[in-house]
Amino acid sequence: MTDQPRPSRPVMLGQNQYGKAENRVVRITRDGDTHHVKDLNVSIALSGEMDDVHYSGSNAHVLPTDTTKNTVYAFAKEHGVESAERFGIQLARHFVTSQEPIRQARIRIEEYAWERIGTSDGDSGHVGADGAKHSFVRKGQETRLTQITFDGERWQVISGLKDLTVMNSTDSEFWGYVKDEYTTLKEAYDRILATEVSARWRYGWSSDDTRMPDWERSYEEARRHLLQAFAETYSLSLQQTLYQMGSRIIDNCGEIDEIRFSLPNKHHFLVDLAPFGLKNDNEVYLAADRPYGLIEATVLRDGTEPRIPVDLTNL
Amino acid sequence: MTDQPRPSRPVMLGQNQYGKAENRVVRITRDGDTHHVKDLNVSIALSGEMDDVHYSGSNAHVLPTDTTKNTVYAFAKEHGVESAERFGIQLARHFVTSQEPIRQARIRIEEYAWERIGTSDGDSGHVGADGAKHSFVRKGQETRLTQITFDGERWQVISGLKDLTVMNSTDSEFWGYVKDEYTTLKEAYDRILATEVSARWRYGWSSDDTRMPDWERSYEEARRHLLQAFAETYSLSLQQTLYQMGSRIIDNCGEIDEIRFSLPNKHHFLVDLAPFGLKNDNEVYLAADRPYGLIEATVLRDGTEPRIPVDLTNL
Amino acid sequence: MTDQPRPSRPVMLGQNQYGKAENRVVRITRDGDTHHVKDLNVSIALSGEMDDVHYSGSNAHVLPTDTTKNTVYAFAKEHGVESAERFGIQLARHFVTSQEPIRQARIRIEEYAWERIGTSDGDSGHVGADGAKHSFVRKGQETRLTQITFDGERWQVISGLKDLTVMNSTDSEFWGYVKDEYTTLKEAYDRILATEVSARWRYGWSSDDTRMPDWERSYEEARRHLLQAFAETYSLSLQQTLYQMGSRIIDNCGEIDEIRFSLPNKHHFLVDLAPFGLKNDNEVYLAADRPYGLIEATVLRDGTEPRIPVDLTNL
Amino acid sequence: MTDQPRPSRPVMLGQNQYGKAENRVVRITRDGDTHHVKDLNVSIALSGEMDDVHYSGSNAHVLPTDTTKNTVYAFAKEHGVESAERFGIQLARHFVTSQEPIRQARIRIEEYAWERIGTSDGDSGHVGADGAKHSFVRKGQETRLTQITFDGERWQVISGLKDLTVMNSTDSEFWGYVKDEYTTLKEAYDRILATEVSARWRYGWSSDDTRMPDWERSYEEARRHLLQAFAETYSLSLQQTLYQMGSRIIDNCGEIDEIRFSLPNKHHFLVDLAPFGLKNDNEVYLAADRPYGLIEATVLRDGTEPRIPVDLTNL
Repeated sequence: MTDQPRPSRPVMLGQNQYGKAENRVVRITRDGDTHHVKDLNVSIALSGEMDDVHYSGSNAHVLPTDTTKNTVYAFAKEHGVESAERFGIQLARHFVTSQEPIRQARIRIEEYAWERIGTSDGDSGHVGADGAKHSFVRKGQETRLTQITFDGERWQVISGLKDLTVMNSTDSEFWGYVKDEYTTLKEAYDRILATEVSARWRYGWSSDDTRMPDWERSYEEARRHLLQAFAETYSLSLQQTLYQMGSRIIDNCGEIDEIRFSLPNKHHFLVDLAPFGLKNDNEVYLAADRPYGLIEATVLRDGTEPRIPVDLTNL
Repeated sequence: MTDQPRPSRPVMLGQNQYGKAENRVVRITRDGDTHHVKDLNVSIALSGEMDDVHYSGSNAHVLPTDTTKNTVYAFAKEHGVESAERFGIQLARHFVTSQEPIRQARIRIEEYAWERIGTSDGDSGHVGADGAKHSFVRKGQETRLTQITFDGERWQVISGLKDLTVMNSTDSEFWGYVKDEYTTLKEAYDRILATEVSARWRYGWSSDDTRMPDWERSYEEARRHLLQAFAETYSLSLQQTLYQMGSRIIDNCGEIDEIRFSLPNKHHFLVDLAPFGLKNDNEVYLAADRPYGLIEATVLRDGTEPRIPVDLTNL
Repeated sequence: MTDQPRPSRPVMLGQNQYGKAENRVVRITRDGDTHHVKDLNVSIALSGEMDDVHYSGSNAHVLPTDTTKNTVYAFAKEHGVESAERFGIQLARHFVTSQEPIRQARIRIEEYAWERIGTSDGDSGHVGADGAKHSFVRKGQETRLTQITFDGERWQVISGLKDLTVMNSTDSEFWGYVKDEYTTLKEAYDRILATEVSARWRYGWSSDDTRMPDWERSYEEARRHLLQAFAETYSLSLQQTLYQMGSRIIDNCGEIDEIRFSLPNKHHFLVDLAPFGLKNDNEVYLAADRPYGLIEATVLRDGTEPRIPVDLTNL
Repeated sequence: MTDQPRPSRPVMLGQNQYGKAENRVVRITRDGDTHHVKDLNVSIALSGEMDDVHYSGSNAHVLPTDTTKNTVYAFAKEHGVESAERFGIQLARHFVTSQEPIRQARIRIEEYAWERIGTSDGDSGHVGADGAKHSFVRKGQETRLTQITFDGERWQVISGLKDLTVMNSTDSEFWGYVKDEYTTLKEAYDRILATEVSARWRYGWSSDDTRMPDWERSYEEARRHLLQAFAETYSLSLQQTLYQMGSRIIDNCGEIDEIRFSLPNKHHFLVDLAPFGLKNDNEVYLAADRPYGLIEATVLRDGTEPRIPVDLTNL
């Protein structure tokens, strides 16, 4: 082993964090013969007094990432998983309060939804009673997300979703834009508007002294308002639709102070069928992959400060 | 340009095919204010008298892949998309009958399902009447598949699905297996059984002289029987569950003669919590990625010949 | 547990196989201070007398997939990994000869190449002598593949590669093709030709009575001929280039009897800059994703029978 | 079209940006018969006076994302692509200076490296002279990245790389860490250390009044120091290796002020072969996928302020 002293200036260590990422935990709760599933992907990031491990490799302040993994599974047993948010809060509190050198914990959780086989379309009668009670099919639509940050005093909870793909087959236009010497686009008065919604919303709740939101209900409400705003907005630009989705949530969900969207414009190009002697009356579209317009913005409650980063990340 | 004569023996050209793959077409049908969506990914593979293009590069027999793409979009307008199967049949017939050198066409189609916003959970009343009529969210569960092959005389239709993830949280055991010198696995009397179903079923229909199945209804029925067999089978092995799913479909869907499954055993390992003084009573599982057991088999109607390849491919 | 008798006719079980897929094994060999790496992804598929496990769930003939995983790691220690092919042969022989009910084993292996840090560009002098001996960077180019099949008597070895992306920036044309009513493509007399090569080649070797090829050398030679044929062919069609690559390998590698290619035509479209008053003299291209032409063919040694499936699979 | 007034308080619009993402441009430069390739993926994000398009859908300030795409291709012709950084600077300057409402442009570029066929292993003599001049194979190792931000006055350039996978097969230990009630990990005195490097470094250059760095040379130097520091560090923790990589770059590349790493600890677990009567003397490892340790930190030049976001994003 070579000897590696603390490097001489002029180099400094900046923000740093570590932990075990992507711990896949499935928690089954048995309510008599009826089972319930919570399916999570939990990532831990801890920070604090960690200079030495960077400078000399001393692990005297380092709780192993393997231990953070074990803690996830142990807590799933000890505390159950009522909601991803509450589970993340329990984990964050544990790391910050039990380890002296750890000053901040950030817990990120992805949640995958399951629905009961035979009940999605109301025909549960077709499945044997036992099957319906413990048999599930993964819903497969959006992935629910949350990020819990705790510094020993204040909480920050940012929840959201990704991979929710939506489309309006009409009631979208795009015209009246700037034209410069590189502009060739034709104006559109009836187009498809489609996007894959990635959204993160920040809760106002930040202290153990006040009551937590009902995380499960809040998620359902935010998702419902988002979808309905998308469906009901006659759109002149994807930015306008974004703002409608965001302001609808701020207006209706008092527990949410800020929301940020990253919305790829999933272009559906009307195919020119004239060379084949056919008229395309908004019937046949080419769904394109790349490039795509990318529209991103934050919508906030008046008087609050934005805290969600400009770039949304996957986990 | 160099001169490239037909290569001297001893080299031969074997099976070959070409065409445009992954043509993404979205077909909107307007029924008054109510819109309907078909969202397909269409891949064309043509074969026939194609020796020259391989030996000398002469394209005299080659309909460009770009033309096969154009044909997909033109046909979506001319014929609509009643079902992926019917659309594939129209395309295959066209290529084989309109181009002398083309002797066989194989059309593969992926279909992505959409559901109306506001109607999935029965609360359509929450969305403005107009929105519900042309606003959609991608269902995101399984991808539906079909492959149509036509040689000018006989049809072969193989349909199916992929990426349908299912789980039974109990009613699964695994014991009584062979032990050799490399066996360390403990027997299990109550385990999670989960898999991501990839299935392909072959229809008996093969001639224009007989009536086609109702493709849309057949898909729904096959999918329903598959899910119900999964849910209702008390399983001693994933092979047993596979066979139950297959035989249930053969028994109930007279139009289907053969079905092949590729079922990864998505292991959910019971986490050992004893080191932490906790008892894990089938509550906390680690969902593993790799490696995974892979169980594959064909189930057929008595008296029929298997035709589905051993290895299922994605498209 | 419900009672599940062998199902009544008319249902039959067809081809079936099972085993552990994607076992990731890294084998380090220490030659003094100099280390060597073999990095493999091994998938096992066994078949034989397996009716009962499908019909009744009896595992009396079933060696657990977990055991097949253990065997991979134990064999990596016991036999080392001289080449992926030889390792696969050892595994296949073991399963077929040690387990009465198992009649056939198919072993698939992916291999990832590593190169020494500091030696890729000849500047190893920059790295401390110790580092260069045990420090590696993943090469990241193609993935090497092999599939070994053994029925107790005959061997079949199909090796190959995937994800090898190549491009000729000139010496490619496309014209003289068939035009029908859906053809709009313009002829091209100087285009980019690019593809992501997926190739599988079958060895003539099939019996323990004859000497195995030198698998490592054969891979290097086949890859070299493939790349050189791609580079040196003035191409009038991707089919012609494919045939040149295949026949070059058959001509030069006596141990290989058959090769199949799946070549997506990675379209690079010349961008029309005329609207901006610019001439694009084969300088600026748009690299497209989907759709893509897909060209697939088998090239064989005269007098041999094709055995490689029409559809190449990833593993 | 419905009438959508500026929403009443209490909702505000926060940071917002838009543009075309993932424009795939390939630029060929012909130097006589010898061709050179630049292969880029360019993403544009513009911000400025964009309130109206969010509130009312008025596009009067909106240069279409389609136009930003066209500009990428036109600039590739007009200015060539000397380096990704210089190309991004030209684009950013154009958008900010030519469009009154646009106050800031952020250009992100991924670059894919190609090498000449026949020259990677020094045997160019094997390829026909013409082939070697215009035939390429994609290198496939890391992806090079840059992000250019310009507000009309100051520049910020953050470059880097992702997907560079490295491994030391020895000279790594992990011991002396904190143990709590959830710790089960055994200390290791000789382990594999492997990671997939994602790094971003920020240049000190920020003004047109000072001379730009030599971007191509700087990339090669930063990459070389990073790899060599990885290879030469006897590691007691991945944090220590990270810090060595970062400080080596700060020490040797005067033009770089800050660097941030995101390093997944790609665990290679020593397989327990004792149940099979075998001793595993650091020879056989299981390469695991999830979960993984994730180590992230910033290293900076003394006296500079950190500007690279805590979370690195892909594009």
